[in-house]
Amino acid sequence: MPPSRRLRAYVHRLLEGSPTRRDARAVQAAIQLLIVLNVAAVVVETLPWVGGPFGASLAAFEAASVAVFLTEYLLRLWSCVEARALQHPVTARLRWALTPMALVDLLAIAPALMPWSRLDLRTLRAVRLLRVFRLLKLGRYSRAVRALGRAFASKREELVVVGFGVVILMILASSLLYYAEHEAQPEAFSSIPASAWWAVATLTTVGYGDMYPVTALGKLAAAFAAILGVGLVALPAGILASAFSDHLGSRAPGPCPHCGRRPDQDDEPGS
Amino acid sequence: MPPSRRLRAYVHRLLEGSPTRRDARAVQAAIQLLIVLNVAAVVVETLPWVGGPFGASLAAFEAASVAVFLTEYLLRLWSCVEARALQHPVTARLRWALTPMALVDLLAIAPALMPWSRLDLRTLRAVRLLRVFRLLKLGRYSRAVRALGRAFASKREELVVVGFGVVILMILASSLLYYAEHEAQPEAFSSIPASAWWAVATLTTVGYGDMYPVTALGKLAAAFAAILGVGLVALPAGILASAFSDHLGSRAPGPCPHCGRRPDQDDEPGS
Amino acid sequence: MPPSRRLRAYVHRLLEGSPTRRDARAVQAAIQLLIVLNVAAVVVETLPWVGGPFGASLAAFEAASVAVFLTEYLLRLWSCVEARALQHPVTARLRWALTPMALVDLLAIAPALMPWSRLDLRTLRAVRLLRVFRLLKLGRYSRAVRALGRAFASKREELVVVGFGVVILMILASSLLYYAEHEAQPEAFSSIPASAWWAVATLTTVGYGDMYPVTALGKLAAAFAAILGVGLVALPAGILASAFSDHLGSRAPGPCPHCGRRPDQDDEPGS
Amino acid sequence: MPPSRRLRAYVHRLLEGSPTRRDARAVQAAIQLLIVLNVAAVVVETLPWVGGPFGASLAAFEAASVAVFLTEYLLRLWSCVEARALQHPVTARLRWALTPMALVDLLAIAPALMPWSRLDLRTLRAVRLLRVFRLLKLGRYSRAVRALGRAFASKREELVVVGFGVVILMILASSLLYYAEHEAQPEAFSSIPASAWWAVATLTTVGYGDMYPVTALGKLAAAFAAILGVGLVALPAGILASAFSDHLGSRAPGPCPHCGRRPDQDDEPGS
Repeated sequence: MPPSRRLRAYVHRLLEGSPTRRDARAVQAAIQLLIVLNVAAVVVETLPWVGGPFGASLAAFEAASVAVFLTEYLLRLWSCVEARALQHPVTARLRWALTPMALVDLLAIAPALMPWSRLDLRTLRAVRLLRVFRLLKLGRYSRAVRALGRAFASKREELVVVGFGVVILMILASSLLYYAEHEAQPEAFSSIPASAWWAVATLTTVGYGDMYPVTALGKLAAAFAAILGVGLVALPAGILASAFSDHLGSRAPGPCPHCGRRPDQDDEPGS
Repeated sequence: MPPSRRLRAYVHRLLEGSPTRRDARAVQAAIQLLIVLNVAAVVVETLPWVGGPFGASLAAFEAASVAVFLTEYLLRLWSCVEARALQHPVTARLRWALTPMALVDLLAIAPALMPWSRLDLRTLRAVRLLRVFRLLKLGRYSRAVRALGRAFASKREELVVVGFGVVILMILASSLLYYAEHEAQPEAFSSIPASAWWAVATLTTVGYGDMYPVTALGKLAAAFAAILGVGLVALPAGILASAFSDHLGSRAPGPCPHCGRRPDQDDEPGS
Repeated sequence: MPPSRRLRAYVHRLLEGSPTRRDARAVQAAIQLLIVLNVAAVVVETLPWVGGPFGASLAAFEAASVAVFLTEYLLRLWSCVEARALQHPVTARLRWALTPMALVDLLAIAPALMPWSRLDLRTLRAVRLLRVFRLLKLGRYSRAVRALGRAFASKREELVVVGFGVVILMILASSLLYYAEHEAQPEAFSSIPASAWWAVATLTTVGYGDMYPVTALGKLAAAFAAILGVGLVALPAGILASAFSDHLGSRAPGPCPHCGRRPDQDDEPGS
Repeated sequence: MPPSRRLRAYVHRLLEGSPTRRDARAVQAAIQLLIVLNVAAVVVETLPWVGGPFGASLAAFEAASVAVFLTEYLLRLWSCVEARALQHPVTARLRWALTPMALVDLLAIAPALMPWSRLDLRTLRAVRLLRVFRLLKLGRYSRAVRALGRAFASKREELVVVGFGVVILMILASSLLYYAEHEAQPEAFSSIPASAWWAVATLTTVGYGDMYPVTALGKLAAAFAAILGVGLVALPAGILASAFSDHLGSRAPGPCPHCGRRPDQDDEPGS
């Protein structure tokens, strides 16, 4: 094996290897720490008493982080062929670049690769916002995020059903409230899309209090919508909770401590 | 078979047939799309910057949709006898016209069939509102809506129990708050029905903040009601979530430990 | 059997008998209807445009209802010995009078039996409020209320555990917020009991918006309390939902359709 | 056994013994009552019409309580070696002093042992606040608190997963809202940490109404965050509810279908 291939295999182990190896664990922990510090920097930068005096340092830290993330991306792109031995190197790398995690990695360095957009203040702010999405890079390392994803996936069908019900309920509630309240409060309930903001705040039970019905008909419709909606909007939590119990929990009965067999194990015919 | 009967059978297949047939799928998808676009039109029409400039186009689209829905209704009425071969054609059509989905279809074209009511502005608005209920037509095609309906139906008993408890708690809480707060806030807590609006907002935990107790007694009663009510009003979500797990989930009962066959397994005649 | 005993037995059947008998069903339905109308009268009476013009009619209806409820109470007191054949008539009636449902019946006629308290306006209002509690009389007839009671009883232990946790969390959160916010908002967070109102509104997620922290420390403490509290206060709903599933639901696997035995049934040794 | 050892054993039984013994039950109930009264004193002391006139009495009660709690702590420290017979007395006492409950006991007397800090008003208030944490001493006696702790512990994994998801969602939502609303409401959404307060109030569905989006983009982002967040933040309640059902409920695994014995049944040595 030529030295370059040995190096590539080593880099691949460092970046993708099991965290039981000490060197891989160290590299991966360092990247995770950098991600967390980076997001923290984006957050505190918006505090006037931090962004002002430490603005230059934070910009430097940001530049350094991007360099590291860019290096990481290129190293991953280079070494990913290790796990795709049967594919042509170019195909392997293209395919890797289109995996969700690789796209997240690209998104994480994208803000720094778009200097041409730095002209417009509003775009600049949106690009800065993108840096918070570096959080998603943590998903590569976090068993928790993957577990959450699996729970969502296993209940996709139920969640779609409920989501559909919520959307229908929201459209009906918004329309009803618009027709009931538009005359009494033409500013607040100016249109059905404006009423939809009321419907979201009500059906999720957030209830900021910036919009609420004042007519008897509106209150009646809102009461019905609230009572129906509370149940419907809280459903996903119940569904996901049962998914967690099924996936992570230990509800499956263990082997019998007396005979050592599981309840669902066949009786051995010879015994 | 005369051509008219062949045509009727074909129309019936198109409208009610399994969506695995390509022509039926196309027709049914087109109707669904039209429903969604129609409801979207009702919603965006209320935005001043849409309803104004595009009002005429939206009215034309509405007219065209009603024509399609009317045609659909008449074709369904004509072809429904295909699935009711043993009934007299008139009886079959009357019975079909009284099924929930046929009534929803009628409701969807009703606004356009009531031109005489177009005189009064308030009635006109109510009639327009009815058009949003075209959403319910989607129920015919949506497995999700049917699943939601089945989950509700399977837990009807529990939901009635909880609904009864919620109504009693609301009446008691409204009355208590009325007696506690009426003197301190005669405007807000003007009567028990007015307090009921507070009770709905509190027990569903929406809490807009337009009404809240200010006296010590009222706060104490409200605290008790809120704590009790949170549990009671959130119950339906828990009940429905377990219904979903039972119906859509994979908690199907395992094989019988005695004979080793599953409850839903056909008896093998030869064994 | 003397006629008076036959009459007593008949009255007992009418009032307590199974609602499958037509005469018992009619009497019991009439009492339930009267209860519902009575509570409705108390509620609508507080509306100025009902209590004013129809005040006299409502008072007459109230008087008539009390007469019926008083008669019902005395008939129950008289006939209850039918179900307590082995007890001395006086003991039997005293014991019956102390059952929860008999106390509720007494409470329902109590407002009318206290004419001496009609002098003070505030007491009078409190006595009127008592009339709403006639709702509880419905519990005698309602399978739903009994099912709710059983679900509560079966999870008493868990509910006490959670209730204890909620009380501790509320005291800790109220104290923390008092110490954090007292200086900034001496009016709103004037004492720990005053902060407790904030804690109730926050932990139940009602959030009226009449009290909220404004200092950084208060917001931090409130955020922790809110996140912890949401889980804790919503627990009872989850616990009760599982109680409902266990008690009313059909989650217990039925007999195996093949061999006719239940999964938990012993294998017959002889087979 | 020398008298001092007999006394130590007796003290140990009194303080730590099973509450089925009458003398142990009396001592333990007295300590619990003192804890509850103590916390109640801290709470009512902040009411101006209690703290003023009864301030001296409450201070005396506080001093007496601290004396009792100090004595209790020293007696526990002295007698704990009874349960640690195989350890050197000094090691045993050091180890005991580092158990969570012993630290809570120390925390409960700490406020009185810090007279030097009584100079600064703010510190003094914080020290007084510490006295509320005497509530945690109840945990030693309460089966309920231990059950709550076990339910948390058994679902630690799921709760960490969800907590991680909530933190990520909060950071993303706060950032999005900051970028959407900062220009329209520079005061309210002044920085991402300030937006985090909005995110907490929204995702827990408290919704005080002190901060809410007003721009279309902000409302859209808030609607998505609210709908996602409601499910995610309500998840812990569902998870804990299933933990309660597993731990306290009667869902114990049935007998093994192979050998017919229950998992918690002792192996009979003779069979």
